[in-house]
Amino acid sequence: MKIKGHHRVIIIGAGFGGLFAAKALANEAVEVLLIDRLNYHTFTPLLYQVATSALDPSQIAYPVRKIFARIPNVQCLMGDVINIDPSAKKLEIAAGGMTRQENFDHLILATGSTPDYFGREDLRRHAFDLRTLADAVRLRNHILRCFEMAAWVKDPDLLEEYLTFTVVGGGPTGLETAGALHELLNEVLKREFPDEEPLSARVILVEKAPHLLHPYPESLRDSALAQIQELGVEVVLGNGVDEIHSTGFHLEDGREIHSRTVVWAAGVRGTGLPELALTARNKIDVKPTLEVEGFNGIYAVGDTASLKNAQGQEYPMMIPVAQQQGVLAANNILRKIKGEELEDFRYHDRGIMATIGRKRAVAWVYNQVPLTGFSAWLAWLGLHLVSLIGFRNKLIVLISWIWNYLTYDRSVRAILD
Amino acid sequence: MKIKGHHRVIIIGAGFGGLFAAKALANEAVEVLLIDRLNYHTFTPLLYQVATSALDPSQIAYPVRKIFARIPNVQCLMGDVINIDPSAKKLEIAAGGMTRQENFDHLILATGSTPDYFGREDLRRHAFDLRTLADAVRLRNHILRCFEMAAWVKDPDLLEEYLTFTVVGGGPTGLETAGALHELLNEVLKREFPDEEPLSARVILVEKAPHLLHPYPESLRDSALAQIQELGVEVVLGNGVDEIHSTGFHLEDGREIHSRTVVWAAGVRGTGLPELALTARNKIDVKPTLEVEGFNGIYAVGDTASLKNAQGQEYPMMIPVAQQQGVLAANNILRKIKGEELEDFRYHDRGIMATIGRKRAVAWVYNQVPLTGFSAWLAWLGLHLVSLIGFRNKLIVLISWIWNYLTYDRSVRAILD
Repeated sequence: MKIKGHHRVIIIGAGFGGLFAAKALANEAVEVLLIDRLNYHTFTPLLYQVATSALDPSQIAYPVRKIFARIPNVQCLMGDVINIDPSAKKLEIAAGGMTRQENFDHLILATGSTPDYFGREDLRRHAFDLRTLADAVRLRNHILRCFEMAAWVKDPDLLEEYLTFTVVGGGPTGLETAGALHELLNEVLKREFPDEEPLSARVILVEKAPHLLHPYPESLRDSALAQIQELGVEVVLGNGVDEIHSTGFHLEDGREIHSRTVVWAAGVRGTGLPELALTARNKIDVKPTLEVEGFNGIYAVGDTASLKNAQGQEYPMMIPVAQQQGVLAANNILRKIKGEELEDFRYHDRGIMATIGRKRAVAWVYNQVPLTGFSAWLAWLGLHLVSLIGFRNKLIVLISWIWNYLTYDRSVRAILD
Repeated sequence: MKIKGHHRVIIIGAGFGGLFAAKALANEAVEVLLIDRLNYHTFTPLLYQVATSALDPSQIAYPVRKIFARIPNVQCLMGDVINIDPSAKKLEIAAGGMTRQENFDHLILATGSTPDYFGREDLRRHAFDLRTLADAVRLRNHILRCFEMAAWVKDPDLLEEYLTFTVVGGGPTGLETAGALHELLNEVLKREFPDEEPLSARVILVEKAPHLLHPYPESLRDSALAQIQELGVEVVLGNGVDEIHSTGFHLEDGREIHSRTVVWAAGVRGTGLPELALTARNKIDVKPTLEVEGFNGIYAVGDTASLKNAQGQEYPMMIPVAQQQGVLAANNILRKIKGEELEDFRYHDRGIMATIGRKRAVAWVYNQVPLTGFSAWLAWLGLHLVSLIGFRNKLIVLISWIWNYLTYDRSVRAILD
């Protein structure tokens, strides 16, 4: 039996923030409704591995219902939240042509982020995102199709379009995607084309800033640049992307690049509601308790919440921040119900890391210890493996990684639209 | 270097017939072009396991290029054959908005079969097929979505529509799909819904004939019926399906069934070309040498070829027939090049088998030894595992099966359109 608690909590979003909030409320004396437009939680740090044929979508997707199958006070519902009335404390959900209304006493907005195109229609139309599992599968199909078309094409200009792959954004996502793409193209796909037509596939990583990995110390930025260049990726720094079309784009310095694949990893924005106080990047201003300014009982966590640390800097849009904020919002709801004082958010920062390719990575452990190369790569593998949800996913991902490492293969190669 | 042999063979279709033909021609003194509209070979016997969340699509899809990566005389090309001129010995292919012409000296048509709707528009619009990987993923998404919608619905009639799943066709595909669906619904999905709303999901298997598994001996037909009923599937025999719409259908005896899911496994037809002699089911009449009647140098194999055995019965549309015909067509091409006499097709029949569910199956080994239950199920598992292409696929499928068996789980549950 589901517990019918006196207090009803609705959590919107089953990403890292919402999931950790729901887990923190498990078996407490509240009734929880967790709503997401998808029926699964996505382990987003490995999306680029789905996009580059290394992992199957199901290996990084976990059914939300399964997580809470044995938790009596948490219900899950798949649907789109189409309307929220924060004052009346009710919201409306839609799915399969139906709508329904739900009331709440407490609300956690964990709606995450969405690509920021800075209002540019060319980006929206022609760039590939890598924010959802559907994005990753779409990109994978496109990459594989480009290679198949290269077998059709004799014209060198057209061949260049199909075999030049561009990633925009020098953060961890951009770096990881560019590295994995280069390995897929040059270690796997090229080997399967006839020798008499040697294909030369290029991967270009474009970053507007004069360096990669903005928040990292200089030694790690330099190491990341050296490692990805050593792999064979062409890095363009201090240069933005102008006017993308279906077969290429111009760099801000005027150079023209012929490329049918442009992956946009250069910026995201929050998913705030117009009724709430928002920042320039559509994030919701929250108090240190994670309550939304001006709305009692409504919390925002993770990528869509804007909160500054003691140094006046916004907490980064990173998974550990979302997880810790989800837990704090849940606990603050319980504190409020008990009449206790709410606690302020304090980020336990264990550092940052990014992988670049086979045995290549950088890590800044506890923002103190820099690691590069093989040791950073092992740390990255270990951390991501233990963070995956579900024993089967851990096991299958581990086997896939070992397989890919030993055979230089990528197995998920069906073009399946 | 790809060998430029004097003779050019084109194979259309990378299913079991085309694949085995190409393998038989590997490293021979002919130039082979293998064309398929997909970039992978599908292990069709396990499609129903993809449709019921047990396996990932990539586990039963193998890149065609990879199979022939080290075979110098076999080239692969992804594209749609849009025109064949059997007299002029040339054909036209299309992909990505481009077309190109290819000439051949010898042609193997291994284009397989397609669902037979018997001209009924209602079937085409509302029934789910299970012939391709895309079909399987579409059906899986639909099944999972029906369950999610069941969490939304209070109206009992609507609930019945969402939770009644119908499979039409009592052959191996229908039987296997019905059994796997029943296990998915009742052992996995139902457990994840709140106790206070117990869901009752039904699976109905409809077969027009008075028995299941037409070509099997009576004892095995009876065993299959007993095993699937024991599992909980409702079997309707001697009754066809009339007029399907989006929320249900009528049986021929007038009974109305509310069901948003109707899987069509009741018939397929060949994919013959209008220029060639065709049977009523659109199959191509071939001589015992597999040459197409009236066209020198053109062969048809597998589901799309019509050939009768000594007893005057058409060879069944089964994988071993396609494989053996593919090999014979390839060898007959080599014989013709050498000026040798062509050989006639002789089917080496190792029997038939169908699985029904956990520890449930029937097998008729060499059409002599009947097996039922656990022993038949083990034989089925073993045969399918060794038949899968690629060591990684065998390994991951084995682990998935062991996992599913021990945990009563089905892991591939993301609704991913």
